[in-house]
Amino acid sequence: MSILADLTARDVAERLQLARADYAAFRSRGLKLDMTRGKPSPEQLDLCDGMLTLPGNRDYHSDSGDDVRNYGGLQGLAEIRQLFSSVVDAPAEQVVVGENSSLAIMHDCIVWALLKGVPGSVTPWSRAGDIAFICPAPGYDRHFALCEEFGIRMLPVAMTDDGPDMAAVEALTADPAVKGMWCVPKYSNPTGAVYSDAVVRRLAAMRTGAPDFRLFWDNAYSVHHLTDRRPALADILELCAEAGHPDRPFIFASTSKITLAGSGLAFFAASPDNVRWYLARVGKRTIGPDKPNQLRHIRFLRDAEGLARHMDAHRRLLAPKFDAVLAALDTRLGDLGIARWSRPEGGYFISVDAMDGTARRVVELAEGLGIRLTPAGATWPGGKDPSDRTLRLAPSFPSLNEVRTASDGIALSILVAALEKLGASAETR
Amino acid sequence: MSILADLTARDVAERLQLARADYAAFRSRGLKLDMTRGKPSPEQLDLCDGMLTLPGNRDYHSDSGDDVRNYGGLQGLAEIRQLFSSVVDAPAEQVVVGENSSLAIMHDCIVWALLKGVPGSVTPWSRAGDIAFICPAPGYDRHFALCEEFGIRMLPVAMTDDGPDMAAVEALTADPAVKGMWCVPKYSNPTGAVYSDAVVRRLAAMRTGAPDFRLFWDNAYSVHHLTDRRPALADILELCAEAGHPDRPFIFASTSKITLAGSGLAFFAASPDNVRWYLARVGKRTIGPDKPNQLRHIRFLRDAEGLARHMDAHRRLLAPKFDAVLAALDTRLGDLGIARWSRPEGGYFISVDAMDGTARRVVELAEGLGIRLTPAGATWPGGKDPSDRTLRLAPSFPSLNEVRTASDGIALSILVAALEKLGASAETR
Repeated sequence: MSILADLTARDVAERLQLARADYAAFRSRGLKLDMTRGKPSPEQLDLCDGMLTLPGNRDYHSDSGDDVRNYGGLQGLAEIRQLFSSVVDAPAEQVVVGENSSLAIMHDCIVWALLKGVPGSVTPWSRAGDIAFICPAPGYDRHFALCEEFGIRMLPVAMTDDGPDMAAVEALTADPAVKGMWCVPKYSNPTGAVYSDAVVRRLAAMRTGAPDFRLFWDNAYSVHHLTDRRPALADILELCAEAGHPDRPFIFASTSKITLAGSGLAFFAASPDNVRWYLARVGKRTIGPDKPNQLRHIRFLRDAEGLARHMDAHRRLLAPKFDAVLAALDTRLGDLGIARWSRPEGGYFISVDAMDGTARRVVELAEGLGIRLTPAGATWPGGKDPSDRTLRLAPSFPSLNEVRTASDGIALSILVAALEKLGASAETR
Repeated sequence: MSILADLTARDVAERLQLARADYAAFRSRGLKLDMTRGKPSPEQLDLCDGMLTLPGNRDYHSDSGDDVRNYGGLQGLAEIRQLFSSVVDAPAEQVVVGENSSLAIMHDCIVWALLKGVPGSVTPWSRAGDIAFICPAPGYDRHFALCEEFGIRMLPVAMTDDGPDMAAVEALTADPAVKGMWCVPKYSNPTGAVYSDAVVRRLAAMRTGAPDFRLFWDNAYSVHHLTDRRPALADILELCAEAGHPDRPFIFASTSKITLAGSGLAFFAASPDNVRWYLARVGKRTIGPDKPNQLRHIRFLRDAEGLARHMDAHRRLLAPKFDAVLAALDTRLGDLGIARWSRPEGGYFISVDAMDGTARRVVELAEGLGIRLTPAGATWPGGKDPSDRTLRLAPSFPSLNEVRTASDGIALSILVAALEKLGASAETR
């Protein structure tokens, strides 16, 4: 399969020597680069400069005339729910606006499910014995960390280019202990895959052993396009309702990567029953969300067109960085058959499958070049990548030049690790 | 005890007739007033006009040079923790800044205690069987609602002018099922009482059956003075540490009634171990708080002096309203011996003990005058006031004139209800 693998031991040794020379030269540059997290760059944050003086002098009334400065308004301003209705694919009246973190909303849904149960629960999840979540992998480490925090068993299933391996998912959901599943359905973290219509349909229709099973539908990158192709995600709320499972999806989204990562808005959307449940719970937690920040967002983004224009501006900054990563991988590794990588059309990550058994070594080698990568295994439940091959590259934060350099160093590290491995196995042949 | 109670049945009947005439006249004014919740008035919110354009153009660096617009900074900006260190009575390094709601932080502490346990827990609280919280009453309805939400039994103890009845508290804490206690130690909601040094000392020193007992120390009104007397609250963190119970207090506060009710900052403060525990939990929930809002607060309040000046401005708006309530009560009820009320030196509420068995009737009568009051019983666990006498008056939101009018109507309603009761009992004598 791998073209390098067809080489003789002597050829491998020669190539390794050359690659190590490149590596030593690279190392001598003494760089310090960070490709660990999907953080927006300062230039992206600058796109929101205008927000730092908004909502503006004496501007504190919502469209309905409410004084946003005071308590209340638990569900969020109607105009914000309207604007983001298309982002979360739900009617505005089924959208709730939270604070600055969709992860926080997911966390809260889990703790409330554990302590109170969700609509359809016979008992709170914490009293249902051992429970489990399906975890398409590679996936988002912070999702998995929530499962770990609350003792929820994780069941990895493979990600394909169309979404999770549905045969595996359907086999698992028969078990009533399986209460939920993590999904990043569009421009998935980290592979960039978009769930196909067929996959979404099957997720909506599948039979679950648990009557209170929930899809944790983290639509984090709904409008975060990198190309002109803008794949539409099938409407999970509608498909679930049609399939007779209206309460199945909990939809999450945020503006963390639209406006400001530190002070965006997060959203929850779901069936009317789920929304009632959510509001009843969150109404015990707080008297209301930060409405001035909601007004600030409306004043800044204005409308759907403004939002689209703003996302285009992000794209102009992000797409060249993704291109740079892909170019570096293509150049160093394109014809060697030792690694595969995603070519995402949106989102924040590129996922690389290095040669099996080398991901940890690649991270170590990159570290040696002064390039910090997400720890190998981080995108797998429990931090355990069974093939030790997945690398997550996050090119958004460094400058374009830094991304170019870092990507070349990463590609070089992937090559060295593969040659080391091939050399070692040649020796033991 | 009651002077009216010494009257003959005929005198009572006469007085009731007069009061009813007053009531009918008042009713004919067709007013619509709301004294239900401790909401800041628009004039108070106007004090923060400047915040609507802050942090300001290109102003996004914290004192340490971090870009506040991006992710991270879980504990909150050092300069904000420093400024509010004196408000929560804890060193800045033991303060965590949250979002806009201290109630939310209390909620989170409870759900984490239930699901994970706190430092010192042998088992998560949700697996410790039946657990209970001590609830000084009258108290804050939203505290009690959290207990109800999560099935925590509530044990009311009487509030005195010095804080909770400590003999009752100490008797209850011997039970290992008693895991916590709600405290609003300064300008208590709703009585305005300030816990005396002796009470705070006993709370710090008392023996508890539960090794993981927590004081939920909601210091909501720490700097919310209404007079020049500014009682100092004893230092609960220090006293607990001295008594060998460093982890006992969880301290909460917020700027909801300092800056903007809808977009303030909330604080958690506690022992180093508790803070480590809290950060480990909250770090699973979010990547970081809204730091631009923290910067906005620093730019607006600047320093301790700025904060004090700002609170003086609040006082100038609030104190006359409290005076108006007290004047109305004094005028209508001062020499009748049928009701008692607090004369708070800070905070947001006046608590009235109407004649036993009449509070619900008073709320009904006030409603008849177009005056909405907090439901009778709301300040008691489960909404059940055993004597049906506590009324909570919240004079902050309406205008001064409205407060004057509403207070007169409330005093009148208290009088009518008392006379009705006296008349009824005279008839059955």
